[in-house]
Amino acid sequence: MTDSRIQSIHVEQVLEHAARNEEQYIADLKALLRIPSVSGNASGIAECVEFLSDHLRGLGMRVRIFETERNPIILAELEGASPKTILFYGHYDVQPPDPIEDWEYPPFAAEESEGRIYARGAVDDKGNFFCIVKAIQSYVETLGLFPCSVKLILEGEEEMGSESIEEFLPQNLDLLKCDDMVWFDGGIHADGRPEVCLGMKGMAYVELSAKSLVRDLHSGKAPLVDNAAWRLVWALNSLYGPDQRIAIPGFYDDVVEPNASDMALISGSGLTPDDILQDWTIERLRSGYEDLSGAELLRRLYFEPTCTICGISAGYGGPGSKTVIPSSASAKADFRLVPNQDPDDIVAKLKGHLCEQGFGDIEVSVHSTMPASKSDPDADVARKMLDVMRANYGEPVVKPIVEGSGPGCVFEKLGVPYVFARLGPAEDRSHSPNEYTTREAYCKGIATVIQFAAEYSC
Amino acid sequence: MTDSRIQSIHVEQVLEHAARNEEQYIADLKALLRIPSVSGNASGIAECVEFLSDHLRGLGMRVRIFETERNPIILAELEGASPKTILFYGHYDVQPPDPIEDWEYPPFAAEESEGRIYARGAVDDKGNFFCIVKAIQSYVETLGLFPCSVKLILEGEEEMGSESIEEFLPQNLDLLKCDDMVWFDGGIHADGRPEVCLGMKGMAYVELSAKSLVRDLHSGKAPLVDNAAWRLVWALNSLYGPDQRIAIPGFYDDVVEPNASDMALISGSGLTPDDILQDWTIERLRSGYEDLSGAELLRRLYFEPTCTICGISAGYGGPGSKTVIPSSASAKADFRLVPNQDPDDIVAKLKGHLCEQGFGDIEVSVHSTMPASKSDPDADVARKMLDVMRANYGEPVVKPIVEGSGPGCVFEKLGVPYVFARLGPAEDRSHSPNEYTTREAYCKGIATVIQFAAEYSC
Repeated sequence: MTDSRIQSIHVEQVLEHAARNEEQYIADLKALLRIPSVSGNASGIAECVEFLSDHLRGLGMRVRIFETERNPIILAELEGASPKTILFYGHYDVQPPDPIEDWEYPPFAAEESEGRIYARGAVDDKGNFFCIVKAIQSYVETLGLFPCSVKLILEGEEEMGSESIEEFLPQNLDLLKCDDMVWFDGGIHADGRPEVCLGMKGMAYVELSAKSLVRDLHSGKAPLVDNAAWRLVWALNSLYGPDQRIAIPGFYDDVVEPNASDMALISGSGLTPDDILQDWTIERLRSGYEDLSGAELLRRLYFEPTCTICGISAGYGGPGSKTVIPSSASAKADFRLVPNQDPDDIVAKLKGHLCEQGFGDIEVSVHSTMPASKSDPDADVARKMLDVMRANYGEPVVKPIVEGSGPGCVFEKLGVPYVFARLGPAEDRSHSPNEYTTREAYCKGIATVIQFAAEYSC
Repeated sequence: MTDSRIQSIHVEQVLEHAARNEEQYIADLKALLRIPSVSGNASGIAECVEFLSDHLRGLGMRVRIFETERNPIILAELEGASPKTILFYGHYDVQPPDPIEDWEYPPFAAEESEGRIYARGAVDDKGNFFCIVKAIQSYVETLGLFPCSVKLILEGEEEMGSESIEEFLPQNLDLLKCDDMVWFDGGIHADGRPEVCLGMKGMAYVELSAKSLVRDLHSGKAPLVDNAAWRLVWALNSLYGPDQRIAIPGFYDDVVEPNASDMALISGSGLTPDDILQDWTIERLRSGYEDLSGAELLRRLYFEPTCTICGISAGYGGPGSKTVIPSSASAKADFRLVPNQDPDDIVAKLKGHLCEQGFGDIEVSVHSTMPASKSDPDADVARKMLDVMRANYGEPVVKPIVEGSGPGCVFEKLGVPYVFARLGPAEDRSHSPNEYTTREAYCKGIATVIQFAAEYSC
């Protein structure tokens, strides 16, 4: 079979096959969702790996399990019609279901009600990556093969930091050799529009700590001793002020402005400021931003690095008052970075700046770093994903760089274009109680992957 | 009997009587310490009021109980030899004994071991004010009367804010009419030197709150929304910077510099920077203060107003990292004020400053305010207290203004000089587990009050 064999008529057959087998595909998803594969639950992880291995072998795929120090990595391969090879990614681990008392249905029962299937992992990520599995099954059962060669890699540590796959990937570049990479996670927009992402921000998460005394002291002693909380406030203030510019010298040196393609994608999404407010369910944007256009807001969202105080802890936080000089104070802060900024360089500049400003006493500990990544928005795989999404869901919201961080930087090492999109329902309850997918979203997701595979392989 | 009747020989008799009755006086103190008169414990408070009323009536004093909305105020009076009237103050309520598991002896058993009597309230304040009671008893039992007229007022809410006495006092100025006021609380210095205080700092305790969002948001959204923690940091930074000057316009307008008597008292104490470090059990003073003299340090301690961050709460404070934009952030802060600064005026200036600086969104709530107070360091009562303390303990550490706040501002309304001193043992465990007094400190305290009363009445 060659490229030319996958024609519209064949795709129609594959889609019809998927539609006819809806009940079976739903039953298979429910079986997967009933496995409590919380990242830290060894028996749930083992059961899930066994289930998926059997299932993928049943489709005729070559399945290998790579043991790691934590949870196994599954690699399933299938030779396809075209000479192109696509790498699909997914993760079979799920968030803990806590707070479990907030669930209307048990988190690992996959109960169905009014078209919704409730379970932890229904969207993040089982209900997404299983659309790929079922698309492969539909092709194999209808035409005997997939339109292109497939490598499907499934990890079990996405919800706990993806450490193993970060180690695995650079050691197995040949094994994962491909032309393009694709993954699905999360849900579509509230208005039914799809989202396609072509990059991810980087991250440097740090904790700044001040220590001024061996123990808290009565605040009457304030004239003669240093106060860790004041030290921390001053140090933080030196990083970022009301002018909303990060004041660390050289912080913006490596920032690259969006190119014409990026700006075209941003404008093309047509999002308005009201769309953003509605999508985030908030009442107002940053003060002073009221008159900015949707495109300008999105440019800042995707292409501006930030410094966020995520938390401050110092002294007494209980009810009423306590007259105390805190002996220690700390702040957690994340720097969201854009492509070309090096997280280690940013941390070094942060430390240098604090010393320079007289805050050498502030200890900087680094929780995690991750570089940003950005795929080519003009790549064939991106264009084809946009076409299919547009045809199935409407004009996509395209994010040249999604505001979160994720496995983009890991897979960037493969040196191929990547794209990720979302197949879950509009109300995305990832990480929240009562996570669910819908029959409709799941079936449409399978159809979308079927169509994308055909388009991609042409 | 006239002034002239109280002569050295009489004082000697009174002192001898106290010494002979040591066991009985100790037994009486233990009985008092065994009553669990924690401010909020109604039955313990009632029992303590009954015990003290009976005890003071037994000395021939006229005792009146004034009911309040909370705990009763006891007023005991005795006509004395001289035409002068002294008002003694004390408080019969005690701090809760928590953490109770840290006590080596039960907190309300008054067990004695190696000369120490362990109990909550042993120093703060039962073991201090009972020295007055036993001095009165010694005079009455020896000479039939006290050297001057006495009014002893005992409140039961000192550990919970002294609200009732603040209401009581201005309505009963005639009842409390006196020439001078004296009270005792806490312990002497580690080196055995006594402490005499002639003023107290004032206080404005506020909470600053920032609110930027209806709920915490994922930090990826940082480019487009306000962060309450940053708003709070910037607002705090506008109040007080590394130059250690409070930046609120007009904050220092009403500050009065110490006069020559104040400075003489400070220098006279002869405290060195090392004495302060040792006394506070800390390793270093504020950076930059290393070369200041003891007198200059004390001038700053007593006469400089401060702004202390007592606590900051914002966002995530748990282990590890969470990428979140805090929707709210708050800081508790106290302004320790010096005489002539009006706490309400300071709060108004704080609010005006925040608005002026663009922080009108920061909510300021006032927890409490209390003006500073300062008694005349040249008053007869102060001079006599210093003389007696010097004779009994050594050169006193004199604080023209003690660094804490307290009932000084309440009794200042009487318009008479006041002085307070400390009769407890050197290791002052007020508010801490295993609070104790010693036989020696208690007996020496009684003798000191006996001698002071004689001196005062001359």
